[in-house]
Amino acid sequence: MQLAMVGMGRMGGNMATRLALAGHSVTAFDIDFNTAQAVAAGHHEITPVVNFTTLISTLPAPRSIWLMVPHQVVDSTITALLEAGLESGDLIIDGGNSNYKEGQERALKLESHGIHFADCGTSGGIWGLKNGYSLMIGGSDVAIDRISPALTALAANSGKGWAHVGPVGAGHFVKMVHNGIEYGMMQAFAEGFELMQAKSEFNLDLQQIAQVWQKGSVVSSWLLDLTADALQQDGDLTSLSDWMDDSGEGRWTINESIDLGIPTPVLTLALQMRFRSRQKNAFAGKVVNAMRAGFGGHPIKPAEKP
Amino acid sequence: MQLAMVGMGRMGGNMATRLALAGHSVTAFDIDFNTAQAVAAGHHEITPVVNFTTLISTLPAPRSIWLMVPHQVVDSTITALLEAGLESGDLIIDGGNSNYKEGQERALKLESHGIHFADCGTSGGIWGLKNGYSLMIGGSDVAIDRISPALTALAANSGKGWAHVGPVGAGHFVKMVHNGIEYGMMQAFAEGFELMQAKSEFNLDLQQIAQVWQKGSVVSSWLLDLTADALQQDGDLTSLSDWMDDSGEGRWTINESIDLGIPTPVLTLALQMRFRSRQKNAFAGKVVNAMRAGFGGHPIKPAEKP
Amino acid sequence: MQLAMVGMGRMGGNMATRLALAGHSVTAFDIDFNTAQAVAAGHHEITPVVNFTTLISTLPAPRSIWLMVPHQVVDSTITALLEAGLESGDLIIDGGNSNYKEGQERALKLESHGIHFADCGTSGGIWGLKNGYSLMIGGSDVAIDRISPALTALAANSGKGWAHVGPVGAGHFVKMVHNGIEYGMMQAFAEGFELMQAKSEFNLDLQQIAQVWQKGSVVSSWLLDLTADALQQDGDLTSLSDWMDDSGEGRWTINESIDLGIPTPVLTLALQMRFRSRQKNAFAGKVVNAMRAGFGGHPIKPAEKP
Amino acid sequence: MQLAMVGMGRMGGNMATRLALAGHSVTAFDIDFNTAQAVAAGHHEITPVVNFTTLISTLPAPRSIWLMVPHQVVDSTITALLEAGLESGDLIIDGGNSNYKEGQERALKLESHGIHFADCGTSGGIWGLKNGYSLMIGGSDVAIDRISPALTALAANSGKGWAHVGPVGAGHFVKMVHNGIEYGMMQAFAEGFELMQAKSEFNLDLQQIAQVWQKGSVVSSWLLDLTADALQQDGDLTSLSDWMDDSGEGRWTINESIDLGIPTPVLTLALQMRFRSRQKNAFAGKVVNAMRAGFGGHPIKPAEKP
Repeated sequence: MQLAMVGMGRMGGNMATRLALAGHSVTAFDIDFNTAQAVAAGHHEITPVVNFTTLISTLPAPRSIWLMVPHQVVDSTITALLEAGLESGDLIIDGGNSNYKEGQERALKLESHGIHFADCGTSGGIWGLKNGYSLMIGGSDVAIDRISPALTALAANSGKGWAHVGPVGAGHFVKMVHNGIEYGMMQAFAEGFELMQAKSEFNLDLQQIAQVWQKGSVVSSWLLDLTADALQQDGDLTSLSDWMDDSGEGRWTINESIDLGIPTPVLTLALQMRFRSRQKNAFAGKVVNAMRAGFGGHPIKPAEKP
Repeated sequence: MQLAMVGMGRMGGNMATRLALAGHSVTAFDIDFNTAQAVAAGHHEITPVVNFTTLISTLPAPRSIWLMVPHQVVDSTITALLEAGLESGDLIIDGGNSNYKEGQERALKLESHGIHFADCGTSGGIWGLKNGYSLMIGGSDVAIDRISPALTALAANSGKGWAHVGPVGAGHFVKMVHNGIEYGMMQAFAEGFELMQAKSEFNLDLQQIAQVWQKGSVVSSWLLDLTADALQQDGDLTSLSDWMDDSGEGRWTINESIDLGIPTPVLTLALQMRFRSRQKNAFAGKVVNAMRAGFGGHPIKPAEKP
Repeated sequence: MQLAMVGMGRMGGNMATRLALAGHSVTAFDIDFNTAQAVAAGHHEITPVVNFTTLISTLPAPRSIWLMVPHQVVDSTITALLEAGLESGDLIIDGGNSNYKEGQERALKLESHGIHFADCGTSGGIWGLKNGYSLMIGGSDVAIDRISPALTALAANSGKGWAHVGPVGAGHFVKMVHNGIEYGMMQAFAEGFELMQAKSEFNLDLQQIAQVWQKGSVVSSWLLDLTADALQQDGDLTSLSDWMDDSGEGRWTINESIDLGIPTPVLTLALQMRFRSRQKNAFAGKVVNAMRAGFGGHPIKPAEKP
Repeated sequence: MQLAMVGMGRMGGNMATRLALAGHSVTAFDIDFNTAQAVAAGHHEITPVVNFTTLISTLPAPRSIWLMVPHQVVDSTITALLEAGLESGDLIIDGGNSNYKEGQERALKLESHGIHFADCGTSGGIWGLKNGYSLMIGGSDVAIDRISPALTALAANSGKGWAHVGPVGAGHFVKMVHNGIEYGMMQAFAEGFELMQAKSEFNLDLQQIAQVWQKGSVVSSWLLDLTADALQQDGDLTSLSDWMDDSGEGRWTINESIDLGIPTPVLTLALQMRFRSRQKNAFAGKVVNAMRAGFGGHPIKPAEKP
């Protein structure tokens, strides 16, 4: 099929390439034209374009335009596409990490222009180029049918790694929960490996342990594979910071659990430990020490560090 | 090699069978002789015995005796083996889920008799018979060398799924942490699936989602595979209770984190949510309601349920 | 001073009464006129009115109107007051438990009509009538100055229990955090008392313990006083449900911690344990059991309960 | 009455003084005789002694000896007292922060010598000298009766702040839970104040807020009073470290919750956040970053800090 891919970052570029390798025609746009050209190099199926006007004139209607841009700029991208001539019958797929509620609002707004919208959660990271992605998409049957050849080309397991999970919103909702679970799993491994590292009495070889767990144990997983690889490169992970970033989806998952009244202690703590990792001189600690000093009779002074 | 397996439960029976299929000679004991006979049926490499005296006379010294018994009866089993004639130079491997500190004590006690001891964490569940196990073993080089042919036969990935992780204690310590992580991962999945089930607006098909996540997503894992299988059998898991049992290792992991002063919020909450699942009419809730009634001016009475 | 109080529920009725006892003139409105009359009975300073038109004609401009209504109906109440003739220069104080962001929006909207707005967090429960309230109010100096005689009359500690904590929004923000802390403290006590109740070996008298802690211990607090009172009435709290309700402020506190990227594990868990108390047959537990059955080889069936 | 106090640290010295002020005769011992002399100065009721032999010869049998020493040296102190001539019928009270299980073992050991033992949890900090303590004591009726005049002298609220809560062990068990709750309450306040400090939009005056909450709010408590005092001295607590120490009781509380199978998420997280405050370059964070780098395709390098 023929479609456009907007956003030639690591994910979008790889996806355009994977589509091209499967024989699909991809009109490729990036805010930096050089980036789009670099992705297109060697792939005659990929046509880089310099602006949305060209993108729209290049693609025959009804168009399918797949967005792989940061969630902060999805709205401005859609507005620009509308201004560039997007037409009734066209389809926009948001494949990035947007909040599902925003997707629902976008669908309503685009519907008033007769434009279809689908929201697609995309998992697989940089390995997706080679192995394919896990794709969970929400939208109407019409929209999903139209884009299904691309979904099959992108999907892992010989094209089986995608599912139409529900109406618009459902795709990003399911991806949001996926990422919430991912946070929990990562923190579980992190705590376990930290415990083993702290048990100096046994002088454990964490790389060896990660590798033996990969073979038949209950915690076998892709995340464990990645951990084993990292430990093989750098056994003490000395080159890595302990400052843990987070993107929006972990936060939205907790907000959702609060809205639904569902307890998610593990998912929440996984996120909050990321927040904690970014604090220097946390005020909470000072407040606790102020109270301890108060009843213990110590003057207000720094707690002693051994 | 020739060794004895004590305890023909699900794990021990399967391990005896796997060893036999690899050509090793196994003297098999169970408290119920019929069980040992059933395991031995059709495997001429397995010799069931009726008591420890026979077990010891059957095995040529130096003997290797692998215990797969509940951790509560490991000490009494060792005592009975000593009484039955265990000799200096023999080796006991505790392959069950014992506390690593108990293993360290057992090693010291057995050392005074000149008997070797190794502690082996065994992961893989019922799938180990077919796929092999992930084995993490602690003990001296002498002990591990002697038992290594059996380890190779039992191990997953063509015999590579085992590792000598350290001195006695290290095997069960590593397995303990493995199980702690397993608790965290399971609770992470559980919270995520519960959130999706609660989001009635999307009417999500959890089986479909589990299956698409199996294909290329970051949360790909054996635990997800098992979840997908269960959802395929029973989409709403209606046949399952929400009462979550726990064995000792999750608890020991938290005790260890407390001893080491290492924060493990995810592992801890995963365990404590199991405790919570077993409470009916929790006193904590009544205490909160007593306070709410106190400042809100309600008389002491049941909180209203909608 | 002269002011109107809208909402004669437990809080609003008591506050009107306390204002009257301090000599202030209160125009009292409730959706149920009988309720307003009952509050006014015996207090010539309280004038019940049947509708907002009468309320507005009764109060000389510039008016001060204090709302003590559920946060869900604050907007409709304000709209009705505007329709009834609220004028430029008038002041609305929202003294209920609204979200501070809504207060900020209301202030902007009312400002376009020249109407002042202040948001007041009110703590103290039913004891406020006798002991006075703890009031944390946000708004302009003009607004707070005008209402300050009422604040002094309502406040605990001989009128000192109020503070102008910042601009509009700050009052309800501080009250929100207050309630978040309250949730944490309540859950801390609840867990401690539950532990003591579960320690059957000591057969502890919880009422006696609560009472001795009231006298000089570090956990001395009003919440402990309330617990001691409740235990004195009903030592096992048998008459209370363990089903814990929650109002919005605990939830908003967690959402705020997520927005700010500040870890609040204790406040969050206090809220989530309330969610958990309301679950019957939690799906999360079934998912965990599905996995346990999967690797343990049990058929899909209810976990055994002892 | 006449009794000995062993350990003239902040707690023991204050308690000896409070007993003396109530007219009781106190034989005072400290490892540093100068310290005992300093406590005795100006109090003819306090007699400092240089060693246990003198202590025992000074006190008429049956003796009451109150220990206020670190829990690590209670056993060695008891051994030294036995060697110095402690006799059948004497009574030892452990008033420090020992683990209740150790108290139970000590009682059994001393019982074989005919010596009574009581375990007394003592709360109140440095304010106990002036205001009295909250005392929760375990032991036999004979033991508690004998020491009751001292308990009354030490107790807050005109001697009412003590209770005989159960057999030996119960005193320190109840104090352990008290401290667990204290941790939870402190962390709840700390999280709340941290949230308010982080909300820069409102530029909140935390000292003012603490003070208004002291007057009639639901979170009124001694811990809030201490926080208000500290904020009055140092509004940003700039002089305090955020490194939070912990003593044993918080840990024992969690171990107990694990033993009993009772969920204590708030008490546990309060402790674990203390652990976290002491980590520099936490390995857990590196493990999370290793996985994120793995699936995101970043080379193994420090996460970027903004």
